[in-house]
Amino acid sequence: MTGLKRTTQKNLMLFSGRAHEELATEVAQLLGVELVPTKAYNFANGEIYVRFEESVRGSDAFVMQSHTAPINEWIMEHLIMVDALKRASAKRITVVIPFYGYARQDKKHRGREPISARLVADLFRTAGADRLMAVDLHTAQIQGFFDGPVDHLFALPVLADYLVQRVDPSMVTVVAPDSGRVRVAEQWTERMGGCPLAFIHKTRDINVPNQVVANKVVGDVEGRTCVVVDDMIDTGGTVVKAAEALLDAGAADVIVAATHGVLSDPAVDRLKNARIREVVITNTLPIPEERRFDNLTVLSIAPLISMAIREIFEDGSVTSLFGGVS
Amino acid sequence: MTGLKRTTQKNLMLFSGRAHEELATEVAQLLGVELVPTKAYNFANGEIYVRFEESVRGSDAFVMQSHTAPINEWIMEHLIMVDALKRASAKRITVVIPFYGYARQDKKHRGREPISARLVADLFRTAGADRLMAVDLHTAQIQGFFDGPVDHLFALPVLADYLVQRVDPSMVTVVAPDSGRVRVAEQWTERMGGCPLAFIHKTRDINVPNQVVANKVVGDVEGRTCVVVDDMIDTGGTVVKAAEALLDAGAADVIVAATHGVLSDPAVDRLKNARIREVVITNTLPIPEERRFDNLTVLSIAPLISMAIREIFEDGSVTSLFGGVS
Amino acid sequence: MTGLKRTTQKNLMLFSGRAHEELATEVAQLLGVELVPTKAYNFANGEIYVRFEESVRGSDAFVMQSHTAPINEWIMEHLIMVDALKRASAKRITVVIPFYGYARQDKKHRGREPISARLVADLFRTAGADRLMAVDLHTAQIQGFFDGPVDHLFALPVLADYLVQRVDPSMVTVVAPDSGRVRVAEQWTERMGGCPLAFIHKTRDINVPNQVVANKVVGDVEGRTCVVVDDMIDTGGTVVKAAEALLDAGAADVIVAATHGVLSDPAVDRLKNARIREVVITNTLPIPEERRFDNLTVLSIAPLISMAIREIFEDGSVTSLFGGVS
Amino acid sequence: MTGLKRTTQKNLMLFSGRAHEELATEVAQLLGVELVPTKAYNFANGEIYVRFEESVRGSDAFVMQSHTAPINEWIMEHLIMVDALKRASAKRITVVIPFYGYARQDKKHRGREPISARLVADLFRTAGADRLMAVDLHTAQIQGFFDGPVDHLFALPVLADYLVQRVDPSMVTVVAPDSGRVRVAEQWTERMGGCPLAFIHKTRDINVPNQVVANKVVGDVEGRTCVVVDDMIDTGGTVVKAAEALLDAGAADVIVAATHGVLSDPAVDRLKNARIREVVITNTLPIPEERRFDNLTVLSIAPLISMAIREIFEDGSVTSLFGGVS
Amino acid sequence: MTGLKRTTQKNLMLFSGRAHEELATEVAQLLGVELVPTKAYNFANGEIYVRFEESVRGSDAFVMQSHTAPINEWIMEHLIMVDALKRASAKRITVVIPFYGYARQDKKHRGREPISARLVADLFRTAGADRLMAVDLHTAQIQGFFDGPVDHLFALPVLADYLVQRVDPSMVTVVAPDSGRVRVAEQWTERMGGCPLAFIHKTRDINVPNQVVANKVVGDVEGRTCVVVDDMIDTGGTVVKAAEALLDAGAADVIVAATHGVLSDPAVDRLKNARIREVVITNTLPIPEERRFDNLTVLSIAPLISMAIREIFEDGSVTSLFGGVS
Amino acid sequence: MTGLKRTTQKNLMLFSGRAHEELATEVAQLLGVELVPTKAYNFANGEIYVRFEESVRGSDAFVMQSHTAPINEWIMEHLIMVDALKRASAKRITVVIPFYGYARQDKKHRGREPISARLVADLFRTAGADRLMAVDLHTAQIQGFFDGPVDHLFALPVLADYLVQRVDPSMVTVVAPDSGRVRVAEQWTERMGGCPLAFIHKTRDINVPNQVVANKVVGDVEGRTCVVVDDMIDTGGTVVKAAEALLDAGAADVIVAATHGVLSDPAVDRLKNARIREVVITNTLPIPEERRFDNLTVLSIAPLISMAIREIFEDGSVTSLFGGVS
Repeated sequence: MTGLKRTTQKNLMLFSGRAHEELATEVAQLLGVELVPTKAYNFANGEIYVRFEESVRGSDAFVMQSHTAPINEWIMEHLIMVDALKRASAKRITVVIPFYGYARQDKKHRGREPISARLVADLFRTAGADRLMAVDLHTAQIQGFFDGPVDHLFALPVLADYLVQRVDPSMVTVVAPDSGRVRVAEQWTERMGGCPLAFIHKTRDINVPNQVVANKVVGDVEGRTCVVVDDMIDTGGTVVKAAEALLDAGAADVIVAATHGVLSDPAVDRLKNARIREVVITNTLPIPEERRFDNLTVLSIAPLISMAIREIFEDGSVTSLFGGVS
Repeated sequence: MTGLKRTTQKNLMLFSGRAHEELATEVAQLLGVELVPTKAYNFANGEIYVRFEESVRGSDAFVMQSHTAPINEWIMEHLIMVDALKRASAKRITVVIPFYGYARQDKKHRGREPISARLVADLFRTAGADRLMAVDLHTAQIQGFFDGPVDHLFALPVLADYLVQRVDPSMVTVVAPDSGRVRVAEQWTERMGGCPLAFIHKTRDINVPNQVVANKVVGDVEGRTCVVVDDMIDTGGTVVKAAEALLDAGAADVIVAATHGVLSDPAVDRLKNARIREVVITNTLPIPEERRFDNLTVLSIAPLISMAIREIFEDGSVTSLFGGVS
Repeated sequence: MTGLKRTTQKNLMLFSGRAHEELATEVAQLLGVELVPTKAYNFANGEIYVRFEESVRGSDAFVMQSHTAPINEWIMEHLIMVDALKRASAKRITVVIPFYGYARQDKKHRGREPISARLVADLFRTAGADRLMAVDLHTAQIQGFFDGPVDHLFALPVLADYLVQRVDPSMVTVVAPDSGRVRVAEQWTERMGGCPLAFIHKTRDINVPNQVVANKVVGDVEGRTCVVVDDMIDTGGTVVKAAEALLDAGAADVIVAATHGVLSDPAVDRLKNARIREVVITNTLPIPEERRFDNLTVLSIAPLISMAIREIFEDGSVTSLFGGVS
Repeated sequence: MTGLKRTTQKNLMLFSGRAHEELATEVAQLLGVELVPTKAYNFANGEIYVRFEESVRGSDAFVMQSHTAPINEWIMEHLIMVDALKRASAKRITVVIPFYGYARQDKKHRGREPISARLVADLFRTAGADRLMAVDLHTAQIQGFFDGPVDHLFALPVLADYLVQRVDPSMVTVVAPDSGRVRVAEQWTERMGGCPLAFIHKTRDINVPNQVVANKVVGDVEGRTCVVVDDMIDTGGTVVKAAEALLDAGAADVIVAATHGVLSDPAVDRLKNARIREVVITNTLPIPEERRFDNLTVLSIAPLISMAIREIFEDGSVTSLFGGVS
Repeated sequence: MTGLKRTTQKNLMLFSGRAHEELATEVAQLLGVELVPTKAYNFANGEIYVRFEESVRGSDAFVMQSHTAPINEWIMEHLIMVDALKRASAKRITVVIPFYGYARQDKKHRGREPISARLVADLFRTAGADRLMAVDLHTAQIQGFFDGPVDHLFALPVLADYLVQRVDPSMVTVVAPDSGRVRVAEQWTERMGGCPLAFIHKTRDINVPNQVVANKVVGDVEGRTCVVVDDMIDTGGTVVKAAEALLDAGAADVIVAATHGVLSDPAVDRLKNARIREVVITNTLPIPEERRFDNLTVLSIAPLISMAIREIFEDGSVTSLFGGVS
Repeated sequence: MTGLKRTTQKNLMLFSGRAHEELATEVAQLLGVELVPTKAYNFANGEIYVRFEESVRGSDAFVMQSHTAPINEWIMEHLIMVDALKRASAKRITVVIPFYGYARQDKKHRGREPISARLVADLFRTAGADRLMAVDLHTAQIQGFFDGPVDHLFALPVLADYLVQRVDPSMVTVVAPDSGRVRVAEQWTERMGGCPLAFIHKTRDINVPNQVVANKVVGDVEGRTCVVVDDMIDTGGTVVKAAEALLDAGAADVIVAATHGVLSDPAVDRLKNARIREVVITNTLPIPEERRFDNLTVLSIAPLISMAIREIFEDGSVTSLFGGVS
């Protein structure tokens, strides 16, 4: 044979965009690596410039960016980083998206709308992503939007394990804040030991997004500790109205648990002023000091992400991390 | 200029596979066309042979096949028809799938599963489909699985308009037979004049698909006419158990409405013997005589499909056909 | 450098669909591995469900399925297995197809036909196959239908080495049962020590597939032991009529050798009752007990397939396995 | 024949994103059409929502968006509009980009950089764009980044025709503000009647983008009216330093002409305070009132764009619009 | 509605590369069009430059080039013409290839060979071809190499209709010059009224392409007028040796008929000096004066190609042109 | 676990087409490998046949071919080699192109032209190239034409390091022979210690390529040693006219430095007879003995290419090889 042989090594490299470097740093520490030094800044007209300060050739690259506001900015930065990795000969590129932007536009609600969640998946594929990792996609079907492996992580165990220490499970009713979340809420009831399930029945005006005519509690909540569960808290309107409806229906207490703390205005004000005992979220999105309030608990998602990255790098099973649900 | 000019004409041609020719014939009549004569048969070892008996060059081709059992057979025939149209220079190929096979495998429920609903969309794209039309996809996100336009039709108006003539709307509660269908059931309550909503809370054993530990009614159904709504009735287990739970919880009466009558064994026996006043479905799938029973009503979906095909051919709006929902 | 390094290992994993597990088991034993435990079953309406019971991440996956009847069923299962492997992060997916379905539809025989053999290749590519292995494709050009490496194995040495022990080579004439197989029959004459060659000249009615007007022997067969060679025996009509024509033309004896025993009805009856000394095939397709008869010999193709898989895994040469022909 | 025939019509529809509706409105008026009514807004967390208020099925769609700041916002909106058009069955989608974002990142200036200009072209292709129209791309090679037809329009005639009325051509020297623009400046000299050409020789520190060590005039400018030409004015640093160097070298007067008025801070202050007689740009980007100053002239690019759209729609020649240069 | 409407026209435009302009001119005359004026030349280092002198926007473009020697030159020119058409917005591009280059490399004859016939199909697809037309592909499977419609034309009727006027059909035996052409020769026997069939059985040395050990006639040729049929005559070795073997076996006379007159050296000398009554070919390739000889007859393929182009343009059936064979 | 494990090795294999084997041999020697034995020849009609004589399965393949005249021949051979490698299961294919053909057609200079440089990039991608390496692309934007990593090497250090030993740097002026090369010439001034810069201002007739009306020196060259720098010398017209203009303008001496010695006729005669002290090029293209002349110096590019290949194979940084410019 005429060639030149070498034993192959693989090399995990972790990259972070500018959207949520704190989380990436925490993941890096748990993995025992440094974030790859990266120069990233905006030109005067807003164009983003990115350059890695170290050779990435042949690496098993994981590129983290959480799609927080200004969301289009960070998605573009994320895409540009993937392009730079592809052109610099990274061997495999895994896009790590703790919060996946545009996940709610996962179907045409009406004619002549985009399906932006599919578009985002395709944009990452085009830029060069081989694989995608995300936490609690708005609907699990988004896995099918990406043409490649998707590792879909669940914060449910993180949130639920915290809550079972804070409440009397026999008093809990899990509540879906709208009809679309009942399926996921049902999964919560399993984790909470088979507790009851309720949901809020909203009537929407089909022509005006988010305009709800009435909130009616379906299910038995009187005297119960209601745990309202959702994938994200955006402006807080949905969960606050749910809390009100629950308390009006005789609930003893309301706790809110959600994976993603989007917390767009006026979420913080609404939540602070609502009769909610505790709001529990994770740090898939950055939660700056000024948005934190007394009864807000932020759990770290970094252990879950770092374990998943390690399993992927070492060809282990990610499914086993969260008990076989996907 | 050196060319040869002609005014362009477009030519709608309608094709049907062998799975459900009755529906295709009805659609053709409503459109005022003949089905394109097509030779299709199986070779001794099961391979399918297809040939069109007329030139299809330049046509605006609509190819209908409903994915009924034997489902893999009909999907392959459908793909082969699309391939033949592509190679015979059809100008645009719209795949019309009244019932879309594998729609329930729209995500990984557990690790190391396929996402067959996305696979099916990709197979049609590869075969040459430009566009897809389907009725009541199991989840609307499947629209996003296809890389091209999807016209998603809804049987809800067909079914609901029939039902409002058969029941006293003030006595109706719409019921979702499981937690995953509550969102769609909520849309039914709007059509039924804002009636109450309930659902069946099932506990499943995660290791054995379909094994439900308990069925608990959530919502107020006592003395009500319960309309259980679903996208499909497969073996009938889900709706029959829902009916039992509802009657046990004091419901006055149960009606079942679903778009797709899959009616796999032992659905017919179960439904016949259940305390269900009426089962209403459409003919998106063939319902042979031997599967029909006394309290089964089959409404035709052909008017909806033919109107949608005409609008597509004439560049009109499909959205307007069913009131803007998608 | 900021990364985390590991020496890379590759891991051969062998998977089998349900069409022909016996062959896969034999291949596994020869390779010294276990088949990866796989759950596969049909839902009531015929949809196929597949799940692997072990992590396949990073594996060098070989997925076997022979496209026997019901052929569309097994092709779809094969595609679904590939999709599941892709989404579960297998590193490289080699589709092993001992008998490749739809191989005979490898061109448009008439206008407005599909080219299903190309379609099948594209479907596997779309599902996620990186590479393809097959035994005796109906025409070698099918290699070019797949956009990637194809390892094309030949059963000729297996069959011929068996036959040279059973006949007096100096008395043999190799016979192609129709005009399209003369090229391959010529390759047999080389293996049989340069023996004579004949073929059956059929006149077909172009409007009715398989309807042959006359069978005329071209070449010298009088007093010879005629070995009729073909890639497959489907309904047996072709080889039985060839045998009759040969005996009518004075042949001393007829032996039939073919790689693929499709044996669709009424093949078994025809072959049993024909004046054929021996029918020799391989087990690329399952040959159930009830289809076996006295003068049928089934040789195992497993040694060839297992050697080829091992060479691929270890980056050796597959060509060398069968003497440079492809 | 079994079909349904219609004479085909084509229908030009013009769409505009929110970045620069003024220009789109002007183009629409020149074409004699209305902009298609479009609902576009941001959700609280910054995600963009778009919906067209009219059927776009079968249309020949032209979608305008100028990539002004916040540039990533407008690129994402542009992509989302294209996705919505694709999914709503527009027949052909032409993306009209008066100013193409990220055009300056058209190559790797150093290792491990992205080629964002190619990425942007690919993103539009992925979203569904069939064709692209742009004005004065930073380098003409960007045409080759898009896999489809690109209509590349030139503002040179618009700018030059204005200038020849304002200066004595015999006194003009055309000046390239840096070494990379000399080729384009040479094209200007042809339009200006064969006048002399000069350029500014900069020495850059290769490690710090934009840090110029010295500006040296190459060419004869003493006593001349120097017309500094560039494709864009971003922060204004380049042209202002060019003007200073020219005046130091004895130039009588300096005029600046550029197609794209990016005018990022502190461009306006710099230009106002510089010894520049007149700054001439076009409105490919919006120039808000507060950025306009006394010696700034803004010419409209709308006539050029509207003529090009009309030619494309009517299958005429765009090349002829600007004298065969591309 | 807000758009601008026009009735659509389609415009056939015919283009020719420099390889065989005579044939293209003949086709143009039969269609009643002019060839689109095209500037094409080589730069000093051999690079090819192409430019169309007329707008081609929106055209239904047919681009002819026959792949004659220097074959790589003309394939590249053909690809470059397609690229230019794509970028100039032709609506549909049909590549017309009277002789398809590299058709013989349609499979891997041995390991580590290319499949150049598939590569050529993919190159044209990449350049922008929508559809392909060719005459007598070396194997019909090459149709399946192109991912789109292929119109496969047959010269058999042209050649056979000429021959039946020149020979006594009752005396004819059709002869395949090697084992791979027997299938096609069988089709000739049908056209020749069901005459006998023979072929030449060659033994090749597998390690040296084209090295034949022996030529043996199989079939009855004594006293017959043998018509040796092939798809092409390259160096003439095959048919000349076939003629010798036939005459040695007692044939009365030999005529050779082939579609493609490649006529590489030393074909002309060989054919002139052989005992062959007449050699009949078509002008799919240019046959310059110096390669013509007394008993060579060249029939024009232009009528067939022009009829096929017209049918494609007018959406008629090409199959009907040659009696349903494909 | 059920698999079979092996430690992975990677194996560099170097292949060469027939265009410039001397350079490939030199690169092989520097790498310490043998060129993989390859059979390549032309059939009589010009079709190219390629086969590798050794297993290439799993290899990290580098395929060198310099696109010299007959350029279309060598590009096709290069593509065919890549196809053969892909089909023979090479793991990764890097196309090494010392001189990239058609680089000058990198944009549409006028309407209805191809962009052949993009076409070439796409052809290699289609054939199966994963990555591309080239020396001094005509414009750096061509990097963006390839959808994958491009390693762009620069001969500037090789040429400049040679020249600084031959001239007095304080007397040097670097000269761009036309307006399009000023940017690259400016990079030379940095390497030459910050020397002055000049260029030749040509007026072209836009309708006739290469027809220059006048050559005017811009910049100060009187009494200077002018080093005219270009990426390639094709027919030599440009540099010879530049030399004349410089000497007419008082230059003391002229030296020409270029990376690629295309040297099409009549380059050698022109250069021999011109008043040029020395012409310095590299051997990216073969320079046969009969094209060498007294004052021609040919430097070897092999060390640069072999170092880059080694870095790619060992996942090192190529950027560091030439000081960070790309």
